[in-house]
Amino acid sequence: MTRTLSYAGLLELTEAILMRGFGYSEEEARITAKVLVEADARGIPSHGVSRLEFYQRNLKGGFVTLGAIPEIVHQTPTSLLVDGCGGVGCYVAEWSIRKLIEKAKTSGAVFCAVRNSNHYGIAGLWAEEIAANDMIGLAFTNTYPCAIPTYCRQRLLGSNPVAVAIPEKDGRFFVLDMATTTVAHGKIELYDRRKEPMPIGWVVDENGRNTTDATAFEKHFLSDPLYGGHLFLGGEGELCGGHKGFGLGLLVELLCSGLSSGLSSFETYRDKGAGIAHFFGAIRLDIFGNADELKRHIGAILNTIRTSEKAEGEERIWIHGEKEAETRAHSMAQGVPIDEATWSFLETLAKDIKIPFPTAS
Amino acid sequence: MTRTLSYAGLLELTEAILMRGFGYSEEEARITAKVLVEADARGIPSHGVSRLEFYQRNLKGGFVTLGAIPEIVHQTPTSLLVDGCGGVGCYVAEWSIRKLIEKAKTSGAVFCAVRNSNHYGIAGLWAEEIAANDMIGLAFTNTYPCAIPTYCRQRLLGSNPVAVAIPEKDGRFFVLDMATTTVAHGKIELYDRRKEPMPIGWVVDENGRNTTDATAFEKHFLSDPLYGGHLFLGGEGELCGGHKGFGLGLLVELLCSGLSSGLSSFETYRDKGAGIAHFFGAIRLDIFGNADELKRHIGAILNTIRTSEKAEGEERIWIHGEKEAETRAHSMAQGVPIDEATWSFLETLAKDIKIPFPTAS
Repeated sequence: MTRTLSYAGLLELTEAILMRGFGYSEEEARITAKVLVEADARGIPSHGVSRLEFYQRNLKGGFVTLGAIPEIVHQTPTSLLVDGCGGVGCYVAEWSIRKLIEKAKTSGAVFCAVRNSNHYGIAGLWAEEIAANDMIGLAFTNTYPCAIPTYCRQRLLGSNPVAVAIPEKDGRFFVLDMATTTVAHGKIELYDRRKEPMPIGWVVDENGRNTTDATAFEKHFLSDPLYGGHLFLGGEGELCGGHKGFGLGLLVELLCSGLSSGLSSFETYRDKGAGIAHFFGAIRLDIFGNADELKRHIGAILNTIRTSEKAEGEERIWIHGEKEAETRAHSMAQGVPIDEATWSFLETLAKDIKIPFPTAS
Repeated sequence: MTRTLSYAGLLELTEAILMRGFGYSEEEARITAKVLVEADARGIPSHGVSRLEFYQRNLKGGFVTLGAIPEIVHQTPTSLLVDGCGGVGCYVAEWSIRKLIEKAKTSGAVFCAVRNSNHYGIAGLWAEEIAANDMIGLAFTNTYPCAIPTYCRQRLLGSNPVAVAIPEKDGRFFVLDMATTTVAHGKIELYDRRKEPMPIGWVVDENGRNTTDATAFEKHFLSDPLYGGHLFLGGEGELCGGHKGFGLGLLVELLCSGLSSGLSSFETYRDKGAGIAHFFGAIRLDIFGNADELKRHIGAILNTIRTSEKAEGEERIWIHGEKEAETRAHSMAQGVPIDEATWSFLETLAKDIKIPFPTAS
């Protein structure tokens, strides 16, 4: 059963849990709560408040240094190299993009590589925060190793999502926010629970070969630290372009861990800390002409796609970011949906720190 | 049967055909010949000298203005907006990236949007030319409309390739050069000739639905100006991430035609000219620290991938750009392979302009 809480209520609760339960500073809690609640409000519960469990585990595992202030290691008018000092990922991300946006207002185009950070929530939110300044916003990150290079059997790369946001007229944004792997891990768990065969192209087994057996895959994935894992977009081998998806995942790794001189996905969450690396970019629209005219032109291109003829049986062509924006509007009006397991978990956390649980909206 | 010609011989022949047969200027011919011969030498014959036929057709169709000099419409320290004035695509690209690289030497990070251009050959070559200056090189372009947005049935976008090159130590480069569609059109033609069913996920029919019938697809694709076409990476719908591939293709469109205020793929090759739009980027490595150290770090990440355990039955994990670099080295030593049809076509062109055909190497 899914219940709903008001956006404000869920935000307040999450902030309180992070501060009083986890020991986050007010600023760390404020930013992290916003990122998690935004994910739930946008219909991405895998990255919503259910992630408090993961954040708690990271804290207990010594991967997060509360109160850490990021440091600028190197900078030029078009660059920032940031050491996150093991701090709270969402805080490090917000800190970095504030500086990125300020610099871009002067330079026009700026990039920021961040090392030694932590999980920063939905990448699309950061890209959109940059884009809200009439800029193209980029947010890439590596993650824990879960994905397999083409023709390999070892998990070496993360799901390595890319997010790019581009402002359109009327305050809308094109927001591409995608793991470079084919599917999120949650989808495999769903097939495991249902005991249904997965589509070919999602994962490979411990030998690096296609498998549709979600239950066997899950059992192996959780017990073996090395072998079997997610496929990149395009699937196994080269027949349907798996090497392209792998190339995109590897590109994200080189931009994040490469340019930040940080840890790679295959070195994260070990003795050197979480070591997650990010790469952000801000490119001002008006370095290519009048920003409003460009936004209108971009909107016109998107409208041609929106209004084109649908495939048989289809009703709508979705521009990236529309589903999330419409789901968010619905959540603001009707409350943010919270599933049963997350609801119980939140109740336990609230009880532990003796704060009242908000009533369902 | 495939025969070979020496790199120098093929280059000289191609230059002569372009100048004396097509009327290209010396500079236009020199650059275009280099781009085409490089593609053949690297094992990408679909973009090699066989493209002379396409270039000839474009010239006859009035889509190329020989001798056109590109114009800078707008610029800032981090940007260039170029009007290609309908000129030769390879010439416009070379002209633009020369200016891009010079600007990046001062600014650190520069982007260049180009409108009103033509086909510029293999995108990876431009990205690599930028990267040879210890920069990250980006080269994107839109193309004629051949690809279908997710849940659509109309061909609205091009194959919209992305190329990113990153220098590694020892003079090597990571070069991701990929159409955002699943496969090149040449692969479909091959299945048509062999009368074999194509894999699911390559194309959709005129109703926007999966088809494996290459012959029926080809017949329809060539006769109907609107419906049926290539799928983006990830295939039809969302099950295996087709919406992600569509997002990447759309992103390329917004960066190329969007930022250049140019034509979109669906408007190209009509009464307003070819109208192809490009987007280039140059990001200096040393804005993130010491360039040599960064190249070593990038090389170390790639070496971990190279030396990791292979999937069952596989012998090598390929880093993007390696196949092309090794094929190129082989071509330089053993000659550039030319297939039978291209050989005959070149012979005809050479005969027309009364130049001697080089002897096979």
